[in-house]
Amino acid sequence: MQNNSQKNSQAHASQAHASQAHGGIKPSPFAPPLTTKALQVPGIEARTAACGLRYSDRDDLLLLSFAKGSVCAALFTQSTAPAAPVIWSKQAIAKNPNARAMLINAGQANALSGSEGTRAMEISRDALAKISGISKNEVLLASTGVIGEPLNGEKIAYILPKMLAKKPCDWLTAARAITTTDSFPKVAAANTDINGTPIQIVGIAKGSGMIAPNMATMIACIATDAKINPKLLQQLLSESNEQAFNAISIDSDTSTNDTLLAVASGKQKHTPITSIDFHNNHLQKSHAQNFINSFYKVMQSLAKQIAMDGEGISKFITVRTKNAQNKEQARTIGLSILSSPLVKIALAYNDPNWGRIAMAIGKTKLHINWQKVTIAFGESGEHVVFANGEPTKMNTREETQLKKTVAKPRITILIDLQEGKAHPVDTWGCDLTHENLRINGDYRS
Amino acid sequence: MQNNSQKNSQAHASQAHASQAHGGIKPSPFAPPLTTKALQVPGIEARTAACGLRYSDRDDLLLLSFAKGSVCAALFTQSTAPAAPVIWSKQAIAKNPNARAMLINAGQANALSGSEGTRAMEISRDALAKISGISKNEVLLASTGVIGEPLNGEKIAYILPKMLAKKPCDWLTAARAITTTDSFPKVAAANTDINGTPIQIVGIAKGSGMIAPNMATMIACIATDAKINPKLLQQLLSESNEQAFNAISIDSDTSTNDTLLAVASGKQKHTPITSIDFHNNHLQKSHAQNFINSFYKVMQSLAKQIAMDGEGISKFITVRTKNAQNKEQARTIGLSILSSPLVKIALAYNDPNWGRIAMAIGKTKLHINWQKVTIAFGESGEHVVFANGEPTKMNTREETQLKKTVAKPRITILIDLQEGKAHPVDTWGCDLTHENLRINGDYRS
Repeated sequence: MQNNSQKNSQAHASQAHASQAHGGIKPSPFAPPLTTKALQVPGIEARTAACGLRYSDRDDLLLLSFAKGSVCAALFTQSTAPAAPVIWSKQAIAKNPNARAMLINAGQANALSGSEGTRAMEISRDALAKISGISKNEVLLASTGVIGEPLNGEKIAYILPKMLAKKPCDWLTAARAITTTDSFPKVAAANTDINGTPIQIVGIAKGSGMIAPNMATMIACIATDAKINPKLLQQLLSESNEQAFNAISIDSDTSTNDTLLAVASGKQKHTPITSIDFHNNHLQKSHAQNFINSFYKVMQSLAKQIAMDGEGISKFITVRTKNAQNKEQARTIGLSILSSPLVKIALAYNDPNWGRIAMAIGKTKLHINWQKVTIAFGESGEHVVFANGEPTKMNTREETQLKKTVAKPRITILIDLQEGKAHPVDTWGCDLTHENLRINGDYRS
Repeated sequence: MQNNSQKNSQAHASQAHASQAHGGIKPSPFAPPLTTKALQVPGIEARTAACGLRYSDRDDLLLLSFAKGSVCAALFTQSTAPAAPVIWSKQAIAKNPNARAMLINAGQANALSGSEGTRAMEISRDALAKISGISKNEVLLASTGVIGEPLNGEKIAYILPKMLAKKPCDWLTAARAITTTDSFPKVAAANTDINGTPIQIVGIAKGSGMIAPNMATMIACIATDAKINPKLLQQLLSESNEQAFNAISIDSDTSTNDTLLAVASGKQKHTPITSIDFHNNHLQKSHAQNFINSFYKVMQSLAKQIAMDGEGISKFITVRTKNAQNKEQARTIGLSILSSPLVKIALAYNDPNWGRIAMAIGKTKLHINWQKVTIAFGESGEHVVFANGEPTKMNTREETQLKKTVAKPRITILIDLQEGKAHPVDTWGCDLTHENLRINGDYRS
């Protein structure tokens, strides 16, 4: 795929996956097909190792190395119980956007893990800095797994030399190394261009539980070989995140470890990117527009993949909110619907219970003019259940068709507020199933 | 119990219940025992009828009649999708605190039910006003059940004359008539005094799903024969509600129909109540203090009963938050823990997963000094799992004991913030079980 930009340089997001399950977790029915294309981003290398931190039969450590001159931007959890690696990385990137490496482990979140956890974070950070000949301020860290369990920093320090001696791995292997209860590794990629110069964007993500919209609620890394200054990269990351990771909810619980990193190696020589503008519906003409759109699509693909891999999911749900006063109002409504246990349980049971959808809109406390609101099911809102202040009186045929639509694995709920002129906002989530309870009840034991 | 005030007039709350289940719903393991004591509040009468609105085998309509001169206060859902009876009652009580009747039906929420729902509300309201010889402005209404289904106003109008011809029923029968997925009717009572004059307080409530703290998240009525002006009654209701119905969460979903009514018939001649003060830890000396404390205890008993009857519950969970900066901070933290699906699932599976408790504290975004926080399980916080910034290193014996404690049906989680001097605040909730999914998946079908 590398150096193989499409003729018209149009952005596209492709997915590269293995749908193998691990750890007794059934693969999500929404796991995308595996493609074996080699995705590469010049200047960014990935290496994995089986460190035995929690899992004994798989790689659980990922090292991303960034060429000199790479710039980074990041978003972190808004939780006031941030994990040790979050506390470190937040201050490191604030001081120095030119990180050279990021180390991610799966198994222990290293959150609320006390002085031992802080020490483990420091041991692995300092070991990586030493062996790579970089400063500790150039090292970023992320952890995912069980909260409160200390990390074994020595094990990581011990394996690092072996890991660095390895050849770089592909992005699918990288994505697989950071999974926990994920049923499939999450990768998205685009080859695009800046003013004709081919540009690669590859993203990986993990996450299938403790997912709620509160900054980047998972671990994800977006790598590109574009050249961009850190402020613009941060802006690109923050703005596209509003309609990506901030537009999903699996269980309304916000993690202590959420970390979203963007890294740009600057290996391609292209016309400089001078501005990022997301507000004009992605339509303004800029020589970097293909790149911006592609970056956004990679982000969104990863976010949707996370929602598709909600623990024990049987339905993937899209809520499309139209004609809100603004995008934030639309997103608040979409996420309230997707976070409601009662809505999620109804949909798991194939019940088009729109009363609960209305309840979830009402509980946002946003002003709603119910005489104007339309609630509908179906890709194009073909099953209207409430409009003009009235529930739809359906005949038996219409009811049967609605039930068929809701019994499908992919459900779209359309909310038309007729309140303002905001463009439609999509939000994504999943149902609440018995399998979700089983996975979350068994996770630690 | 009536006219049988205790020698020292000390307030106490007693519970009177039947734990029979209905509608295929297993009785909650926390259903209090049935007592057959006749509770009466002079000036307030209850009557029930089987109207066949949704249920065919039980009473589903409750009429409360208030003697002339009774005063009312109420709290309603903060949902911006309020049901037709909520819209009506809110404006009626704002204009006239001297309501003479309240009519409550179970089966249809009459929310988002369009013009047909509004008409049904008006038909039943006007019929009741006419047959009782009162103004429609003296009629309050509440509905509970499925959202979006219109109510049959004619059926109600038809049964009202028969209903009014009946003798008043006891409060247990009244409470049972308004249940939906409740596994037991909820009644609490206290006999207390105002300056030596015996005073009765009886409360009933319904609710076991769509319960989240957002004003009065259910239907409840507190009746007393005390004489009190409507402003003070409203203050008493609002303030005691903060530590009652606003301190519970079953599923974090806020209903369209929440209604909490207090009615005081004024049938007892006692020293006038001149002020309500809740802020001094209920300790200030006022001749109405016994009454105020008893009112609060009745409210709290009903709120706890609702949490104990969470749909499909296997655990009743108390979170006690100590040394917060203020009560609101304490309640926010308690309710965030009780609303977290991941915490609730862990506890359903007997997993003392304190990492998820810390996550739920962090996601409130409140500033927390983790060096000071203690997290513990057990009635008196005997199992400390996190303190002084460190997870507790437990030996096998301690771990076994902790697991035993968490395997019990009643679990207390203690959070000591060491942040301020707020008195301990209790909040109540339940676990998230497979039975909850089954009940909520099957509710409409």
